[in-house]
Amino acid sequence: MLLASRLDRLGTETAFAVSQAAAEWGARGHHVYPFHLGDLNLPTPAAIVEAMNVAIGNGRTGYCPAAGITPLRDALASDVGARRGLSYGAENIVVQPGGKPVIGKFIQAVMEPGEEVLYPNPGYPIYESQIEYFGGTGLPYRYVETPTGFALDLDHLASLITPKTTAIIYNDLQNPLSAESSAEEMEAVAELAQRHDLFVLSDEAYFEMRYSGSSRSIVSIPGMQERSVILYTFSKKFAMTGWRLGAAIAPRSIADVITKINTNDESCTTHFVQWAGVEAITGDQAPSAALRDVLRHRRDAAVEAVNAIPGLHTACPHATFYLFVNVTGAMGALGFDDVADFASAALHSTGVSFCTRRHFGRPQPGESQQYIRLAYSGIDEFEIREGLGRLRAWVTA
Amino acid sequence: MLLASRLDRLGTETAFAVSQAAAEWGARGHHVYPFHLGDLNLPTPAAIVEAMNVAIGNGRTGYCPAAGITPLRDALASDVGARRGLSYGAENIVVQPGGKPVIGKFIQAVMEPGEEVLYPNPGYPIYESQIEYFGGTGLPYRYVETPTGFALDLDHLASLITPKTTAIIYNDLQNPLSAESSAEEMEAVAELAQRHDLFVLSDEAYFEMRYSGSSRSIVSIPGMQERSVILYTFSKKFAMTGWRLGAAIAPRSIADVITKINTNDESCTTHFVQWAGVEAITGDQAPSAALRDVLRHRRDAAVEAVNAIPGLHTACPHATFYLFVNVTGAMGALGFDDVADFASAALHSTGVSFCTRRHFGRPQPGESQQYIRLAYSGIDEFEIREGLGRLRAWVTA
Repeated sequence: MLLASRLDRLGTETAFAVSQAAAEWGARGHHVYPFHLGDLNLPTPAAIVEAMNVAIGNGRTGYCPAAGITPLRDALASDVGARRGLSYGAENIVVQPGGKPVIGKFIQAVMEPGEEVLYPNPGYPIYESQIEYFGGTGLPYRYVETPTGFALDLDHLASLITPKTTAIIYNDLQNPLSAESSAEEMEAVAELAQRHDLFVLSDEAYFEMRYSGSSRSIVSIPGMQERSVILYTFSKKFAMTGWRLGAAIAPRSIADVITKINTNDESCTTHFVQWAGVEAITGDQAPSAALRDVLRHRRDAAVEAVNAIPGLHTACPHATFYLFVNVTGAMGALGFDDVADFASAALHSTGVSFCTRRHFGRPQPGESQQYIRLAYSGIDEFEIREGLGRLRAWVTA
Repeated sequence: MLLASRLDRLGTETAFAVSQAAAEWGARGHHVYPFHLGDLNLPTPAAIVEAMNVAIGNGRTGYCPAAGITPLRDALASDVGARRGLSYGAENIVVQPGGKPVIGKFIQAVMEPGEEVLYPNPGYPIYESQIEYFGGTGLPYRYVETPTGFALDLDHLASLITPKTTAIIYNDLQNPLSAESSAEEMEAVAELAQRHDLFVLSDEAYFEMRYSGSSRSIVSIPGMQERSVILYTFSKKFAMTGWRLGAAIAPRSIADVITKINTNDESCTTHFVQWAGVEAITGDQAPSAALRDVLRHRRDAAVEAVNAIPGLHTACPHATFYLFVNVTGAMGALGFDDVADFASAALHSTGVSFCTRRHFGRPQPGESQQYIRLAYSGIDEFEIREGLGRLRAWVTA
């Protein structure tokens, strides 16, 4: 009675340990500044909750189709298409319990065991986990720091492609880097995908979590729609992380396959939550805009406070709610070699809790700089200033 | 750019085609009697909805732990344990978006590719689908009709076990048969599992959907708890099918693995829905009892009306909301060889819509009798009598 060996290949999100350490430190009576959370401490707009209750009143408590209710699929097809200059129909939309399930279902749909999939590192750890779990080989591609943020190392990315490569996972407006591709960089990735006939998972979780400028999707580039699946989520824009509502937006053949996986797995996404999703997309957008305003103020406060700390620096990203902060100087000044030790000491000296580069994949050869990720979605502006003020005092003591 | 070959092994629920045929017939202006639905046309008790809204008011709209919130895990450990005479702790409970995901996650946890898993046929079609999808071989075991319902063919079941067998999927209070094991039969299955050192998935979806007598769990038999996973669902007892709330109840080692799969897949089950689940289990049980009363009246009406039709017969099950009706005589009298043709003719002649034996697995060698499944969960008592009256008129015309 041994458990299955496939489980040896299943990864996880190690950031959980950071939450636990923060909770333990807090439980001992210390004040904690939670910069580790990729969650929002803001309420879901009231009209969305109300729409859910109307749906329950209308008896939407039974099963619904595995691909989702038609009004939500229609609304998503129209909204997602319009924002990207693409044409989608309901048949391209498969509702999911969150954005995350799209990762594993995409992998299951397009990757044979033994094939290779490229994924970003630093990046969301579930990419690598799901590639390896389903018997593939995950090949991490990398980024380089620039004066305005991070750029893809395109030569390195191209060098990873072999005849076994079947897909690229691409996450513009990236977690944890907040990296945003230039038009040229995005086109270069699309060109590689087309030249080598690869599938693309475009993780667009932060597409609308943007404070200035406008988002572009790689799927909008000619020749990309038929090979690309978009990961869409309601979590960020509408403060609905715990509602578990997202969608795969895919060519018909892949959408059909993902629907069949739904039938085998969760049956359908919570019925009345889907009606809340219809309201989120088609209703008044002012509450969602107000939410973004709050986050923009937090971003500005965090960027200013970080860059006021000697030995720390960050660019000011236009999107997401993360700062990927270079802490190499401060670590050197304080005598730390290991960024995990730096994080632990920061928590116990200042209460400031955060993830490090290590929570987003194994370091790649040749990495010389040290980074931490500060998330400003789960902490108020006052606390951002106070917490990072304490961090400054500790670093400069 | 071919899709992955694993998808060739993925099955589905073909009952969807029955819903579609019924919907099309209804759309043409005909009255449809929906005996095909494994869903409830009854509202979720109001206190459960209220508890969900209280949770939203308390800010339970963000992520929660992958295994579920502690109050729900505690409540389930206590309630499920007490009803089975077993001791469970929160560490044995992994909350899921419905009962169904437990099937695939159990298979992933215990079965290597190439191993064999026994499953009931007729039975819930997702068992076979998930066994084959994850690279195993599904071996169907069978039932025989008795004067009081259906019994396992234990000799046949025992004959299927080989050194490659790793697990048995066991569904007492069975869908579609409504079969209920005698104490001796259940002990015989447990004895086989222990003698051959097999894992057991005990699908207990209908454990509390019972009208008389009391349910027993195979997991209560000494030596079983450490090898068994219980599939638990809120769907039936509390009329919460569309809420998507269930749990895997498992030995710690398997619970940990399923939690890790959650982290990779849906992250967590909808946060505030879990608080509704706490109310469902720990709150006033009168609404759930009232719901069962409604279903008992429907069962009585359906059993009486079925047995009044010449060439149809059914026993009166103590649990579930299905009748597995022997229609061999009526098919012969009307000149049908194929139960699918019989179902189609019944729909178009009477409006009565139902699934047949074929929707619950490939017929096994030597099957001589013909069966349909009538579900009485999604149709009111008056409609049950009227619809089956029309069926009687058609059969006897």
